[in-house]
Amino acid sequence: MESEAPHHHFRWDGGNDTRGTDIESNLAGPGVSMSLERNGSDHSDLREPLVRKRTMNTTSQIAIVGANVYPIESLDYEIVENDLFKQDWRSRQKIQIVEYIVLKWTLTMLIGLLTGLVGFFNNLAVENIAGFKLLLTSDLMLKHRYALAFFTYAGCNMILAGTAAAICAYIAPAAAGSGIPEVKAYLNGVDAHSILAPSTLFVKIFGSILGVSAGFVLGKEGPMVHTGACIANLLGQGGSRKYHLTWRGLRYFKNDRDRRDLITCGSAAGVAAAFRAPVGGVLFALEEAASWWRSALLWRTFFTTAIVAVVLRGLIQFCKSGKCGLFGEGGLIMFDLSESVATYSMPDLIAILVLGVVGGVFGGLFNFLLDKLLRTYSIINERGAPFKILLTITISLLTSCCSFGLPWLASCTKCPADAVEQCPTVSRSGNYKNFQCPPGYYNGLASLFFNTNDDAIRILFSSGTQNEFHLSSLFIFFTAIYSLGIITYGIAVPSGLFIPVILAGATYGRIVGTILGPITDLDPGLFALLGAASFLGGTMRMTVSVCVILLELTNELLMLPLVMLVLLISKTIADGFNKGVYDQIVVMKGLPYMEAHAEPYMRHLAARDVISGPLISFSGVEQVGNIIRALQLTGHNGFPVVDEPPLSDTPELVGLVLRSHLLVLLNGKRFTKDRVTQPRENVLMRFGASDFGKSGLGKGLKLQDLEITDEEMEMYVDMHPIVNTSPYTVAETMSLAKAQVLFRALGLRHLCVVPKNPKGPPIAGILTRHDFMPEHILGLFPHLKPTKPLRATT
Amino acid sequence: MESEAPHHHFRWDGGNDTRGTDIESNLAGPGVSMSLERNGSDHSDLREPLVRKRTMNTTSQIAIVGANVYPIESLDYEIVENDLFKQDWRSRQKIQIVEYIVLKWTLTMLIGLLTGLVGFFNNLAVENIAGFKLLLTSDLMLKHRYALAFFTYAGCNMILAGTAAAICAYIAPAAAGSGIPEVKAYLNGVDAHSILAPSTLFVKIFGSILGVSAGFVLGKEGPMVHTGACIANLLGQGGSRKYHLTWRGLRYFKNDRDRRDLITCGSAAGVAAAFRAPVGGVLFALEEAASWWRSALLWRTFFTTAIVAVVLRGLIQFCKSGKCGLFGEGGLIMFDLSESVATYSMPDLIAILVLGVVGGVFGGLFNFLLDKLLRTYSIINERGAPFKILLTITISLLTSCCSFGLPWLASCTKCPADAVEQCPTVSRSGNYKNFQCPPGYYNGLASLFFNTNDDAIRILFSSGTQNEFHLSSLFIFFTAIYSLGIITYGIAVPSGLFIPVILAGATYGRIVGTILGPITDLDPGLFALLGAASFLGGTMRMTVSVCVILLELTNELLMLPLVMLVLLISKTIADGFNKGVYDQIVVMKGLPYMEAHAEPYMRHLAARDVISGPLISFSGVEQVGNIIRALQLTGHNGFPVVDEPPLSDTPELVGLVLRSHLLVLLNGKRFTKDRVTQPRENVLMRFGASDFGKSGLGKGLKLQDLEITDEEMEMYVDMHPIVNTSPYTVAETMSLAKAQVLFRALGLRHLCVVPKNPKGPPIAGILTRHDFMPEHILGLFPHLKPTKPLRATT
Repeated sequence: MESEAPHHHFRWDGGNDTRGTDIESNLAGPGVSMSLERNGSDHSDLREPLVRKRTMNTTSQIAIVGANVYPIESLDYEIVENDLFKQDWRSRQKIQIVEYIVLKWTLTMLIGLLTGLVGFFNNLAVENIAGFKLLLTSDLMLKHRYALAFFTYAGCNMILAGTAAAICAYIAPAAAGSGIPEVKAYLNGVDAHSILAPSTLFVKIFGSILGVSAGFVLGKEGPMVHTGACIANLLGQGGSRKYHLTWRGLRYFKNDRDRRDLITCGSAAGVAAAFRAPVGGVLFALEEAASWWRSALLWRTFFTTAIVAVVLRGLIQFCKSGKCGLFGEGGLIMFDLSESVATYSMPDLIAILVLGVVGGVFGGLFNFLLDKLLRTYSIINERGAPFKILLTITISLLTSCCSFGLPWLASCTKCPADAVEQCPTVSRSGNYKNFQCPPGYYNGLASLFFNTNDDAIRILFSSGTQNEFHLSSLFIFFTAIYSLGIITYGIAVPSGLFIPVILAGATYGRIVGTILGPITDLDPGLFALLGAASFLGGTMRMTVSVCVILLELTNELLMLPLVMLVLLISKTIADGFNKGVYDQIVVMKGLPYMEAHAEPYMRHLAARDVISGPLISFSGVEQVGNIIRALQLTGHNGFPVVDEPPLSDTPELVGLVLRSHLLVLLNGKRFTKDRVTQPRENVLMRFGASDFGKSGLGKGLKLQDLEITDEEMEMYVDMHPIVNTSPYTVAETMSLAKAQVLFRALGLRHLCVVPKNPKGPPIAGILTRHDFMPEHILGLFPHLKPTKPLRATT
Repeated sequence: MESEAPHHHFRWDGGNDTRGTDIESNLAGPGVSMSLERNGSDHSDLREPLVRKRTMNTTSQIAIVGANVYPIESLDYEIVENDLFKQDWRSRQKIQIVEYIVLKWTLTMLIGLLTGLVGFFNNLAVENIAGFKLLLTSDLMLKHRYALAFFTYAGCNMILAGTAAAICAYIAPAAAGSGIPEVKAYLNGVDAHSILAPSTLFVKIFGSILGVSAGFVLGKEGPMVHTGACIANLLGQGGSRKYHLTWRGLRYFKNDRDRRDLITCGSAAGVAAAFRAPVGGVLFALEEAASWWRSALLWRTFFTTAIVAVVLRGLIQFCKSGKCGLFGEGGLIMFDLSESVATYSMPDLIAILVLGVVGGVFGGLFNFLLDKLLRTYSIINERGAPFKILLTITISLLTSCCSFGLPWLASCTKCPADAVEQCPTVSRSGNYKNFQCPPGYYNGLASLFFNTNDDAIRILFSSGTQNEFHLSSLFIFFTAIYSLGIITYGIAVPSGLFIPVILAGATYGRIVGTILGPITDLDPGLFALLGAASFLGGTMRMTVSVCVILLELTNELLMLPLVMLVLLISKTIADGFNKGVYDQIVVMKGLPYMEAHAEPYMRHLAARDVISGPLISFSGVEQVGNIIRALQLTGHNGFPVVDEPPLSDTPELVGLVLRSHLLVLLNGKRFTKDRVTQPRENVLMRFGASDFGKSGLGKGLKLQDLEITDEEMEMYVDMHPIVNTSPYTVAETMSLAKAQVLFRALGLRHLCVVPKNPKGPPIAGILTRHDFMPEHILGLFPHLKPTKPLRATT
């Protein structure tokens, strides 16, 4: 029996990799996926056990989760058509439809509003905490108390980092990392436990603030996307049932489709809030996050991000009056390049091509190294919360040493006579940090290291500053950021990848710009922008959204063709090496992500080749005891219902019944002594469609909540009113590739496979997400070559 | 029998409305759609004839088209899985896949290249022709020879307009109008005859140049989208077969899926070339044009538009050296607002809200009036080419009278002392046209009327010119443009709607800006931008793409939140009145466009309710005569194949065979004397998969091309190797709404409906696009209320 207390043991165990010891031995093998799916309780339990690592507790199928395996549940976007549904639609009043629309748009607005507020709060907090820390250190530096300055700086960082790791490790391990892979998987139809829970939201917000303030080489952008998705999920569920904050009006949203739409809006709002890029947010949601898209959704995400933009603009306007402490102008990055004019000639173009190629290589390498490192970290992280905190603090110390130590390698530069800014900088952020240099001089490397990441990017992008940085300083900075970016991501702290990649890319671009300085007219600031684009293209593999985000960040439209060109080149090059970084993390976390295109070998397999029996099916009027036993024995979520004589004249597939619906029906106890169909009105009177609404993962009625007496076990229940009478079906001879097109396009959870010959049983099996996973298929058919997918062919 | 000669009679008859006399009596009624579908030869012929306006020629089913009905064919995106396909995949070499990928990207690049070139050529020609005309007239005006000036001006316009109308009416009537609705319909799966033919491309390019040069209130943007799509189609078909310019390598693209992708890229390239807005082009293709979308397509369209951007930039750079005649800086609109700063306060925001609301009302009214007028015009246009030309010339004369006459109403204004430009203007385009005024004065209204539309927009958007126009001048201009925009669209000339709408909207915005001038800080140029946004939102109902296009046009990112706000408001308001203008035209042209969401009443109907018998099906080994007779009798494009004893032990649905495949098979003449299945190798040896590739509409093998002797008619043919053994099926009890989700999501042409009870025949009927059309359903069930779709509910 599951209770609240031992639940913690089953929680997802870290942001990096969660499958514990499986990782090295069998990363993408069938065993791992099997155990995931098994616990995720899809229709896979009766298959031949390929690798059975943990014993199954047969009395409860919901959360029997191994220490390092977190439960996954497939989402179901199919329209369930049963008597109840039809009844519900017939009786639905116009006023309810209006209510639904009003609610939907209100929720969409609220998502924008809240995400905008959180985004602003996040920045405000970071600017103030990090600003205070930097001012304190600068003060001590000015007094030449270097050792004390270092200890203050490193101490602050370690305390912030430790706190972030602690809340993350103890309260919500799911909040570690970027969150974009999880949101992406959710929008693909995979719900991982507690990934969008209120506790995750809490840790994501505060962990991100602490993490960024701690001076790590990480960003707040990924976490903002996750935050937006959490907010959307919370709103869609009508608040938290735990805290008795639910609202009946939100019953319309108790299904996976409406929730998916809200969460898509949430992820768009997150990007919009993180970058102040409303159009970029819409495109991000479209290009990277969402797996299904409709024109109507474009319109809704656009509305959400417009709200975010208005909220942010209002609050920043408010802060201009100086009421926000150290916030000032900064925080929400907006790099204004408008002073430099983008004119370029043929040699510049060639230089840019080369820049794109090299950027693609660096991006691919980044993904490769990140992957390797995450696998190493997961060994440490799975040992428990203290180890996570220890790792985080170690990395924090390393980062502090780099930031504080490396600037000593740079020589002092005389302040330029024509500097626009004050030199050396006296306020918190600025281009000319004094560090250890005498008055009138500045340390270029310290200017980069001793600022927040946002400010460092702003400095790198700034134009008209050709000779501000020594080439050696840029090289040192690039090496440090590139390495720190990779080793930081795996720690148990909410951490985005955008900022490290942009920072490393901008430095790389500036290096190229500085080297080419004598022979090109292009400003090094523009080279930095192109460098950032090439790195983003090389790691994230997004194109249009990154392009628009960069445009919105820099307010520089004339660079558009060049940015596009660089993105195209770097993405193409990097695609030759490996997958995009988010796809890679999705695979590594074992989330059964379903690609839009089928693998080539799936064309040679038929649907019947991957389903395997014995199939458990019910009769339309079934004995209660049979149902209970079937539910106990298996973790299936859908059962075919077949009427046989005397209920019908020949065996006939009535449809598919869902486990959750069955539990509600059994809980209602409308049982009969004999095997007879009941008048449907009986059931329809007793239940409303909203009783069958879907709760959040793990929150619905559970088998152990039912109280069935022995006498009742002998009785019968008529399932007809709740059976989905029109499940999607495919012929058993259909190729798996074609079945996948259907499965994926419609976002199904179960796909019935029917035999060609009408003489046999009316159903041959059920395909679930699991059956389309390459690991499963290659496990069944080891002779198939896992061809490297030629993506472009589809 | 169909031959090439009488084909012209069947051509699509005008750009406005093509269903002739049906229009008034029965606009959206079942009869119209019926006759369209019947001719479009979908699976609808055997249904109860609701309105049968024309007799059917039963010997040929392909182009029996009434004078005013053009043939429509549904596209088929289903993967056909038969023995041949499997054979083909098994034998496909790695080298062929690589070849395919290389070809695909080459084609994508070529589309960008050619569309960019055409876009530039278009502008170059317009600027030179219109410039020459305007200079000539100005010259005469300076000499006070006003009457001669008018006759020259009106004469030039009429000659240009007449030529445009003539080539359009005689060579390619399908080229009239915007073309966006047709492209939209094509990408939804409806291929209208000759809509993407080479002749249409030719007329679209030159007709657009002539039409724009003739001073009409119309744009080149819609035609550019159509041009891009035509170019893509032409490239995808591997050139024209008529002119023996085909290439075997392009056999991979002989299917609807690959063609759809290419044409999506083409439409994106069109927008990119028209507005110099590469990101806007991608978003336009996504939001407005495409019905299916994949992430991979985003990436490809982005590549195409990047090529367009690079081509245009290079050519404009080249023109800066003065080698392009009167082209100068102009032509490709790019309105630089960067001098004005966007700061706004609360009262400004309220003003902008009101501006959005009123803009939405005007936009909705525009659509309403346009719809009414197009119906009137179609009566004239259907009378034949001379009437079309006459109508065009009349409108041209009216436009000339307005442009030349109305400026006389405006009083002369003294040139401002601080004018940035020369005043009065001496060159072709400028803010201060002298017209009839004495030296040192200018006529504001003439400045707007006596420029190309692009220049007029640039003037309206220009900042720092608060008092350039009298309010009365703006009112006159607004009224004239709004009315001319509506009455111009229906003429037989390629004509875009973007420019009229932007022009009217910008004038409207400037009126608001001028009125509010004393109480607001916002520049009237910015108000003009917001006004244009409100009109675009109100007519086109696009959001993200219009937003990005406007940003790319004006290079002004700081206005983004305001533009978004205005678009959201005006779209919401206008959606309360009617559909977007392109959707409206699609409906009016009778194109069976399939919406992503089902109508509410479809939930109450089952799939079996709308299919109707008798169904024609074949046996797996069928007598040749039977097949020929069935093909002659019906226009069906797909036939179910049912094996009965002795071919199988029970009646069993083998699959679906396509008409086009049957024709190829019959043409191969592998007949047998007896009803026996043949070894599949026989067929597979004789045919390759590429033999069954899809040709362009109307270009494939036709029934009358077959030469079957009487003896052969008695023989049998084994269809098994070409039968699609895994067609998508739904149960007969599935609601029509749910079936539509499947049909639309997968882009099907045929959807098999199978009975619930396995005892009966194995197939109940076939659903086609036609069966989902509201006209058809409401014809069968007149008691159903055609509820106004609450779009937001889906």
